[in-house]
Amino acid sequence: MLTSNFRELLEGRWGLGNFLCVGLDSEPEKIPQSARKATARETILNFNKAIVDSTKDLVCAFKPNPAFYEAHGEGGWGALKDTIAYIHESAPEVPVILDAKRGDIGNTNIAYARGAFDDLGADAITVQPYLGGEPLAPFLARKEKGIIVLCHTSNSGAGEIQNLKTEDGVPLYKVVARLATEKWNANRNCCVMVGATYSEELAEIRAIVGDMPILTAGIGAQNGDLAKTMRAGLDNNKKGLIINASRSIIFASSGEDFAQIARSKAQELQSEMQKALS
Amino acid sequence: MLTSNFRELLEGRWGLGNFLCVGLDSEPEKIPQSARKATARETILNFNKAIVDSTKDLVCAFKPNPAFYEAHGEGGWGALKDTIAYIHESAPEVPVILDAKRGDIGNTNIAYARGAFDDLGADAITVQPYLGGEPLAPFLARKEKGIIVLCHTSNSGAGEIQNLKTEDGVPLYKVVARLATEKWNANRNCCVMVGATYSEELAEIRAIVGDMPILTAGIGAQNGDLAKTMRAGLDNNKKGLIINASRSIIFASSGEDFAQIARSKAQELQSEMQKALS
Repeated sequence: MLTSNFRELLEGRWGLGNFLCVGLDSEPEKIPQSARKATARETILNFNKAIVDSTKDLVCAFKPNPAFYEAHGEGGWGALKDTIAYIHESAPEVPVILDAKRGDIGNTNIAYARGAFDDLGADAITVQPYLGGEPLAPFLARKEKGIIVLCHTSNSGAGEIQNLKTEDGVPLYKVVARLATEKWNANRNCCVMVGATYSEELAEIRAIVGDMPILTAGIGAQNGDLAKTMRAGLDNNKKGLIINASRSIIFASSGEDFAQIARSKAQELQSEMQKALS
Repeated sequence: MLTSNFRELLEGRWGLGNFLCVGLDSEPEKIPQSARKATARETILNFNKAIVDSTKDLVCAFKPNPAFYEAHGEGGWGALKDTIAYIHESAPEVPVILDAKRGDIGNTNIAYARGAFDDLGADAITVQPYLGGEPLAPFLARKEKGIIVLCHTSNSGAGEIQNLKTEDGVPLYKVVARLATEKWNANRNCCVMVGATYSEELAEIRAIVGDMPILTAGIGAQNGDLAKTMRAGLDNNKKGLIINASRSIIFASSGEDFAQIARSKAQELQSEMQKALS
């Protein structure tokens, strides 16, 4: 496998007008009967291949979340690895973001980085900021990879911690955005994750991070507003956004037409994005 | 497998004077030659069985960190599952803490809880506080399990985020300790994790959390002081601490005697703990 550079791959996709990221939250119980096989492992992989084939020309990234694979043990983990290998093979121009939200001390993050990048072959990973920047070094040292720090998440209770104001009146999510920009980005591979359900905060964070890529989740099933998200989140070059939708695309149909319907849903979002861009 | 209760298992072990938790950070590259087998999966399992057999009467818990298993793909994940099954079989009175430091939105945490508790069979899991208490619900709903929230971690840069003072002058780690105690503990299954390398903060956190179990990591390889940790961290009943050591026990010898030396190291720590208790 040739070494690819996450940021360069992204720029290539943005250049084609692709901002959509398809989240492969591929729970076997939700996978249409017509795509099911004898084992969870085969079912997940078979389904993911069909979704990748039907959407790969429309996206800027694919984003599997390991939670839905780990829940099925080693077979699930095997399906995750095979899915990433399949994407690299059939769409080498599309980066894969492992939405793992990992975060441990440095010695342990060496192992997480090894798993995500060397074993699974992901191009980027999402990470937790709670332990600070120091233990993120094993991730950040991988210059060609994208290290996406959780900044303001999409969930309804995100503010309980993230909106806490620090002594000088700045909320925690802005402190994290500043640290990611000013201290953790020496290798120009740091990114942030911001929920599309919080477009005001997204605009504030864009003002802090400059042209850093922002992964935004929460349009679709979580009801984030796409046009608002783009107004708030695009950088000065009208780029910089990775806009994820998972369930609203991959599980849009439970029939045999699931892959075509996923494509239609992705196309709908792409036209909405084009409208918002112009 | 009978349903066990994490807190009850812990109380049973504390009642025997066992406060030591052995961290199964079982990196195959560090496993003695004499314990190696044909595959990483077999090597890890073989090594873990020997460590479990030689220390199970001395501990209050075992704590595998999935980072070191994920790094070896599905075989590593299989070894993790088999290790937990082996502990339940050979030492059903000793709870297993999955030190996964997971944290995502609620919909995703359902899958993480399923993976950790139903597929792997862990009795407790460590979780991230950054997304707030709302998405922790799928973990906290499992009344019989221990949900251990990162509060103040052991790494040198922990303070970058965790020591940030909030508007009323209270540092973030204390805010997390208060939330864990006052809001997230409705099922009496919430615990906190505090680095043994920060004994002052440990004492402050104990004052907030009452008799909540505290998992403390960082004695041993990270040089936390055991006597100080116990003075700072025990509750009013001289219980409440899960004191983890990983590398300093499991990799104390690289020879054929690794399991006996691991036992000696565990016994040394246990005597030091008995001294500190009296």
